[in-house]
Amino acid sequence: MSTARKYFDFPGTFEMRRGGVLETPRVAYETWGELSAARDNAVVIFTGLSPSAHASSSQEDKAPGWWEEMVGPSRPIDTRKFFVICINSLGSCFGSTGPASVNPATGEAYRLDFPLVTLEDVANLGREVVRSLTIERLYALVGPSMGGMTALAYAAMYPGTYERLLILSAGARSMPFATALRALQREMIRRDPDWNNGDYPEGGGPITGMRLARKLGMITYRSAEEWEQRFGRERVPEERKSGDSFALDFEVESYLEAHANKFTGQFDPNCYLYLSRASDIFDIAEHGGSVEAGLARINAPKALVIGVVTDLLFPVHQQEELAEGIRQSSGSVEFLELASIQGHDSFLVDMDRFRPPVHDFLAD
Amino acid sequence: MSTARKYFDFPGTFEMRRGGVLETPRVAYETWGELSAARDNAVVIFTGLSPSAHASSSQEDKAPGWWEEMVGPSRPIDTRKFFVICINSLGSCFGSTGPASVNPATGEAYRLDFPLVTLEDVANLGREVVRSLTIERLYALVGPSMGGMTALAYAAMYPGTYERLLILSAGARSMPFATALRALQREMIRRDPDWNNGDYPEGGGPITGMRLARKLGMITYRSAEEWEQRFGRERVPEERKSGDSFALDFEVESYLEAHANKFTGQFDPNCYLYLSRASDIFDIAEHGGSVEAGLARINAPKALVIGVVTDLLFPVHQQEELAEGIRQSSGSVEFLELASIQGHDSFLVDMDRFRPPVHDFLAD
Repeated sequence: MSTARKYFDFPGTFEMRRGGVLETPRVAYETWGELSAARDNAVVIFTGLSPSAHASSSQEDKAPGWWEEMVGPSRPIDTRKFFVICINSLGSCFGSTGPASVNPATGEAYRLDFPLVTLEDVANLGREVVRSLTIERLYALVGPSMGGMTALAYAAMYPGTYERLLILSAGARSMPFATALRALQREMIRRDPDWNNGDYPEGGGPITGMRLARKLGMITYRSAEEWEQRFGRERVPEERKSGDSFALDFEVESYLEAHANKFTGQFDPNCYLYLSRASDIFDIAEHGGSVEAGLARINAPKALVIGVVTDLLFPVHQQEELAEGIRQSSGSVEFLELASIQGHDSFLVDMDRFRPPVHDFLAD
Repeated sequence: MSTARKYFDFPGTFEMRRGGVLETPRVAYETWGELSAARDNAVVIFTGLSPSAHASSSQEDKAPGWWEEMVGPSRPIDTRKFFVICINSLGSCFGSTGPASVNPATGEAYRLDFPLVTLEDVANLGREVVRSLTIERLYALVGPSMGGMTALAYAAMYPGTYERLLILSAGARSMPFATALRALQREMIRRDPDWNNGDYPEGGGPITGMRLARKLGMITYRSAEEWEQRFGRERVPEERKSGDSFALDFEVESYLEAHANKFTGQFDPNCYLYLSRASDIFDIAEHGGSVEAGLARINAPKALVIGVVTDLLFPVHQQEELAEGIRQSSGSVEFLELASIQGHDSFLVDMDRFRPPVHDFLAD
C-alpha cells in the first residue's frame, strides 16, 4: 500500500446512479504540490481502468507512478505549479470502496452485491473529494481512457467548476468493437470455474480468466504497427521453449505471458468486471438525450482532446467527435491527432509525443 | 456430410515438412464444372482455417457453400467455363485427415499425436489431388486468408504449374499482432479443463474455450467501422435479458453469442489448434531465405493480390508487400486495395466489391 495514499470517507449514504446505495464509501487519492493561497491551482486526474491513485513518485512514496513522466516537478503536469490530485475510482481495489471491500452491513466483502458502478458515480465521489479539500474551482480536469469518460461525466454534471478540460484517448461512449472486446474479457473471467460467481478467496479466484483477459487487453491496448517493429517474427530462444508444440514460440507470445503474470493477483477480478462494465455503460447522451446535447452541457472555458491514429479501442474519430461536440458551448477547443504507433496505450508510453501538448495546454 | 464430397487417398507414407509421417492420408475435395479436353481450365481454391471444401452449391449438394456468390455458373469463378476444385486442408475435420481422424496404427483418433501441420503439407497434398485428376497445369490458383498462404506455398514449390495466381487478404507470413490473437485463441481452448490435453469425447470437449475463441475470431475478422454502422449502441430488448448484470446487454454481444453457438460443435478443437498454429508458422521466407527470395520463386505469368483497408489480421500493407515481391519474377502483377468495411472477412461478405475484380482477373 502506498504511504502517500490519502482517504476521503463520504459522510453517510451515497446513492448510486443505477440504483442501490453505499454506506460511507471511501475514496483513495494522492496529491502532489501545494494548493495556492487562492485555491486556484488544483488539477484533478481520473484514471484508466486499472491504475491506482499513484500517478507519480513523491517523497512519501518513491515508487514510480503510472504516469511518472507526465506528473512531477518540471513535468507537463507540473507539481511545482499545480496542486495535483489523482483519484482512485470507486469500484477499484486500490483503497477506494469496491466489490472487494467489506460491506459494513454484513462484515463480508460485497462481491456481486456491490451495486452497478457508473462513471458518473466515480465522478460524483471525485467531486466530493475536491470539495472536502475546500476547492471550489479546478484549474484543470484531466482524464485518459476510462478516466477521460469520467472527466466528461464530471464536466457535464459540474459545468463551471473548472478552467481547462484535457481528454486523452477516450470517447463520448464505447462503440461496439470496444464493447465486444470488453464483454469477451469479462466472459473469460466469468467462465473460469474459479470465479465461482464472484465468491473466491481473497487474492485467489479466476487466475486463468484474468490472465486471458489481460492478454486480450494488452493486444487491444497496443497496435499491429508497433509489434511489427518490435517483435517481427522473433522466436523464443530454444532454451526457453517447453517442447510443447502449442506452448510459447514467438517473442510476442512471451511478452504477453510476462504481462499476464505481472497483472494477475494485483487486480481483483470482481472489481475488474465492475469497472469494465462501467466503461461499456457510459454514454454522454444520458446527459441531455443525445451525444450532441450531452457534450453541449460541457461548458469548458478551454479544452484539448488528444487522440492517436492507431487506437483500436477509442478510434481517433471519437476524439474528433468529442472536440466538435464540446466546441458547441465552450471557449477554445482544440483537437490533436498524434501519429503514435503504440495504440490506445500511447499516452502511457509515447511520452515524447504526449508531453509537449499537455505542457503547452496547461502552461499558457 | 456433403454428398458432393470426393476423396483422394495418398498412396503410401506421406512425409510431413516438420517431421513425422502419415500413412495414406486422405484429402476431401469438391469439384464444379467440366474439365476441358485440353485439361487447361482447372481452378484450385484453398480455403481459410474453418471452411470445408463446399465452396458452392451443386446438383449433388444444394446447401449454399461458403463462397456461394463467388463460385458457380456465371459467377466470377465461373463453373460453366472452369473446372473448379476446392480442397479441404489436411488437418481439418471436414473429410481430410486431421487430429480427429483415426490413426490406422492404433485404431484411435490421432489427437495430439498428429504431426505438426504446415501449409506446405496442405499445398503438397493439394498438388497430389491435382495430379490424381491428371491435370498438369492449372488455369488458376486461388486462396483467401489462410488459403492464400497455402496458395503461396504451392506457387513457390511448384512454379510453372499454373497460369494465374489470385491471393486475397493474406500475407507472406503472420505478423505478431495476428500471431498474438491466434495464440490467445489457442490458449482459451487449452485452458478449458474440458480440453483435457486433447483427449475429449467426439463432438464434446472444450466448448467454453471454443466459444471464447470463436468470439475473439469474429471480433478480429470484422472491423470497428462495420459494427458502428451495424450496431451502434443498440441494446438487447428487455425481454431477452437475463437479469444478470454481466450478461448480454448490447446487441453486439448478442451477435457474438449467436456466432459462437453456431460454430461450436462444428469444428473439432484439436483441428482448430493445428490449423491455427499452421497459420502462425507459415513464412514464405523458408523458401529461399528471405521474404523477397521466397516471393521471387513465385514465377506467376499473371497475378492479382487483393487487400482490404480495414483488415486487422492481414493489414493491407502485407498484400502490397506480396504484390511487390511477386512482381520481381512474374509477368503482370496487380495489387488492389478495396475500401470494404467488413475487415478480414470482406472477401466473404462484401461481394459487390470482390466479384468484379475476381471476374475480370480470371476472364480476360
